[in-house]
Amino acid sequence: MKLGRLNHIGVATPSMDESLKFYREVMGATSVVEPFELADRNLLVAFVDTPTESGMNGTQIELIQPLPGDTAFTNFLAKNPQGGQHHLCYEMADIHAAREWFEGQGKRILGPTRPGAHGTPIFFLHPKDMMGQLTEIMETPKSGH
Amino acid sequence: MKLGRLNHIGVATPSMDESLKFYREVMGATSVVEPFELADRNLLVAFVDTPTESGMNGTQIELIQPLPGDTAFTNFLAKNPQGGQHHLCYEMADIHAAREWFEGQGKRILGPTRPGAHGTPIFFLHPKDMMGQLTEIMETPKSGH
Repeated sequence: MKLGRLNHIGVATPSMDESLKFYREVMGATSVVEPFELADRNLLVAFVDTPTESGMNGTQIELIQPLPGDTAFTNFLAKNPQGGQHHLCYEMADIHAAREWFEGQGKRILGPTRPGAHGTPIFFLHPKDMMGQLTEIMETPKSGH
Repeated sequence: MKLGRLNHIGVATPSMDESLKFYREVMGATSVVEPFELADRNLLVAFVDTPTESGMNGTQIELIQPLPGDTAFTNFLAKNPQGGQHHLCYEMADIHAAREWFEGQGKRILGPTRPGAHGTPIFFLHPKDMMGQLTEIMETPKSGH
């Protein structure tokens, strides 16, 4: 298995509006994927694009606000009321091969492979098996990011 | 102020050897800046390079292991024995202008501007003023990263 692109850093927020205002007005973000609801997950997500030498295709900040019915992010915010860093997401070319690889390494996978916020399949790995880092693996999008 | 490149994600670790082995053998990292001691900070740091479309110049993972005499990372590890995500670092072109900008926004800056692990000046911003994210600002390196 070869390390893929660091697609995004997941950041929990109690208020999508406040987070977008913060990233735009304080941090100076110029390119944002506007908030949308993640189907069947009870989450509102948005992406802040970051620059590279060749464009705005750097590692994104994924902002995540829980909606009624969510438990995972609601619990995270109960412990971290202001929000904060939640997970890291790496791209891998073949999601099935990636799942088999991590299973073969004895890493606990959290739930089934499912569609993620970028429309490609994803799964999560247990932070206790990943040096304390909640890690998402997503299949590399076929066209851009 | 304009959002700069997401230079690195700081990740605390209780064992640099274990973390490098994890990133190389489990995650498949192929390019690493070998561990070195951060002068006067009592920290051992290393960088894992991540790929972009054009090379291995993506957002880095900065691995940080406290050495005797450190308190900040030692305290972080007391709460998170396995380690985990610690901070986000954005590049900005002019460190003095950046410091003035954040001061003008009423954001608390943690200590003086000082040399960082990439050899350019850095400062840290209080997570409580940054939507829960401990944020490092570093002056963009003059040549590469």
